[in-house]
Amino acid sequence: MTRVGVIGIGHGIFGRRSDATVQELAFEAFREALADAGIERKEIDASVIGSVPEYHKQRSLAGVVQEYLNLNPAPTWLTEVACASGSAAMRTAWMGIKSGVHQIVAVIGCQKMTELSTPEILALMGRVGEVQWESIFGTTFPGYYAMFAHSHMHAFGTTRRQLAEVAVKNHSYGALNPKALFRKEITVEKALESEPVASPLHVYDCCANADGAACVILASEDRARAHGRKVVWLDGVGCATASMSVLRRPNLYSLPSAVEAAQQAYRMAEVGPRDVQVAEVHDCFSIAEIMAYEDLGFCEKGQGGRYIEERKSYIGGGGVAVNVDGGLKAKGHPIGATGVSMAVEIVKQLRGAAEARQVPDARVGLTHNVGGIGQYTFVHVYRKD
Amino acid sequence: MTRVGVIGIGHGIFGRRSDATVQELAFEAFREALADAGIERKEIDASVIGSVPEYHKQRSLAGVVQEYLNLNPAPTWLTEVACASGSAAMRTAWMGIKSGVHQIVAVIGCQKMTELSTPEILALMGRVGEVQWESIFGTTFPGYYAMFAHSHMHAFGTTRRQLAEVAVKNHSYGALNPKALFRKEITVEKALESEPVASPLHVYDCCANADGAACVILASEDRARAHGRKVVWLDGVGCATASMSVLRRPNLYSLPSAVEAAQQAYRMAEVGPRDVQVAEVHDCFSIAEIMAYEDLGFCEKGQGGRYIEERKSYIGGGGVAVNVDGGLKAKGHPIGATGVSMAVEIVKQLRGAAEARQVPDARVGLTHNVGGIGQYTFVHVYRKD
Repeated sequence: MTRVGVIGIGHGIFGRRSDATVQELAFEAFREALADAGIERKEIDASVIGSVPEYHKQRSLAGVVQEYLNLNPAPTWLTEVACASGSAAMRTAWMGIKSGVHQIVAVIGCQKMTELSTPEILALMGRVGEVQWESIFGTTFPGYYAMFAHSHMHAFGTTRRQLAEVAVKNHSYGALNPKALFRKEITVEKALESEPVASPLHVYDCCANADGAACVILASEDRARAHGRKVVWLDGVGCATASMSVLRRPNLYSLPSAVEAAQQAYRMAEVGPRDVQVAEVHDCFSIAEIMAYEDLGFCEKGQGGRYIEERKSYIGGGGVAVNVDGGLKAKGHPIGATGVSMAVEIVKQLRGAAEARQVPDARVGLTHNVGGIGQYTFVHVYRKD
Repeated sequence: MTRVGVIGIGHGIFGRRSDATVQELAFEAFREALADAGIERKEIDASVIGSVPEYHKQRSLAGVVQEYLNLNPAPTWLTEVACASGSAAMRTAWMGIKSGVHQIVAVIGCQKMTELSTPEILALMGRVGEVQWESIFGTTFPGYYAMFAHSHMHAFGTTRRQLAEVAVKNHSYGALNPKALFRKEITVEKALESEPVASPLHVYDCCANADGAACVILASEDRARAHGRKVVWLDGVGCATASMSVLRRPNLYSLPSAVEAAQQAYRMAEVGPRDVQVAEVHDCFSIAEIMAYEDLGFCEKGQGGRYIEERKSYIGGGGVAVNVDGGLKAKGHPIGATGVSMAVEIVKQLRGAAEARQVPDARVGLTHNVGGIGQYTFVHVYRKD
């Protein structure tokens, strides 16, 4: 069966984009990906939109984007799985090519997070937990991740300083990424002294909402090889789910969906965590990146705090370089775009085109994209020829 | 490459379901499909949810449904393309099986349309047209379809009586469907004399919102054949898009996306319109069914009014029997569920299990599911062994 390759990538500027509608954001990333692929627009035979539609005033978003990109009458569909919507778009596009129905598919993650008012956004985000039994008691995203952090600290002795070190690393790489929301370095002290949000998480432990879009153009093996230049292959797609309610989780220091999705992706791509040089993980909160190190097998369970403390997740740190584009923390988190943005960075790394933040000799890369509070995790493994 | 077969179907009661949450509606249909398939729940290796999420208070709907159906840790994702969301779910599930990643996938269309207040729902529905240039001038769903109707009348002499005949037929079949919202026959006079909504459309030209869910379990060819009983195959999947704005359509009496999607589906299934005995088409308004007859090739363009007047779309009418479960008109239209509900009826017909509304000797069936005002159309062709 055909492999699926990436032939084009594009990435818009993440931030407060009051200058653009969501379809304009989509176009910004799509235009760059089309130019990167060097193909004609009419060669694209489908698009998939990753987005959480309720953050926008326009309904029927996939149709709006499809028309704005001038891709009619090609098929399109939108995938939504909270903050992993972009990775679900990648997965269904990959299936579309594998199934033989499509040859070249544009995957567009796009999201405006600032179109609605802040109270409206908070109301939406407050209902990503289990509405019937948990949200009504005030569980919010920071609240859930604060519980994860406390649990990890209690079980493994993880410290607030280790959490802060994640933010320091991601800001240091965000400073090198011209598309990132925050492009400035911070110190551990600054992170530790920032305002508390939900104990033990402070402001610098939390990523920020942003508007933005990213685009990846996928192609069948034939079409990718005919394309003539080095191709990065999407060789492993893993996806798993876990209970919505944290009351029904086996523990709060690991995401079972991430562990399962990683195993699927590694198995399909015939690699293991030791083969990975670079990864984009879902650091919506600092603790989430530490849990990801462990859930993905970069280190033993409980050793995530030490992993960042020993700078193993830095470029050249001796471990897997993680979130070297700034991660959600510094780059910003336009929820539907994030999964596709992760893919863009991994492709750039495997092409050796990441410039100041290039991971040396990157051959295998991975994305880890979490929806909600771990109800879904998508893990994708990329390899270069 | 593997064919994809339907091994189980389930259908909930459509109507005002204040007795059930959206996940409970999903379970109602899923339980029936699981029993119909006669498989164990753990044999299902993924689910796809067709729904328009913003109509519900709960966010992250796919995860909630997945947990409620006790399908964790299997993958899930939600597809949204307005009123065609259920068919997009079918399409991506079909791709998942064709791609070899999944063997058995449950497709669940589920929607509550009555959870939000009426003003909230009207505000959502009012933004399915083009927000920037059309919605602000008051274009609503009935308004758009009224324009389609006027255009069709002007071009082809279609009459209000012919429109009313569509409603009469669909109500006559809805009366035979225990899962339908409206289970009573009506007369042409009653339809003609009902209150105007948007000229020339009156109340009986319009379908009604409803809560409800439907489920189809798809399987790979091996798994479907091993299943031991007669299988209905999903052999053709077509999907096309058209401009959001009607200002940019070539005319208003045809949906270009429907014409294109039908051609794709016929080609893939290696059949033509003359091979089809039974079809479920998207009769959100009476004029939409008349346009569908033509766009699908059941009759020439402009002859749709005569097609219903001559009762060709009735069972035994000499044409293709259309919407013999009552259609959106009598069954009700829970937007995310409708595409899956259509599939359930076609499978029932091809199995010869549709009882009082059975189409004799049905061998090839078709679903035609429109999103928005034709921004998307999905046409799927089913065949029995």
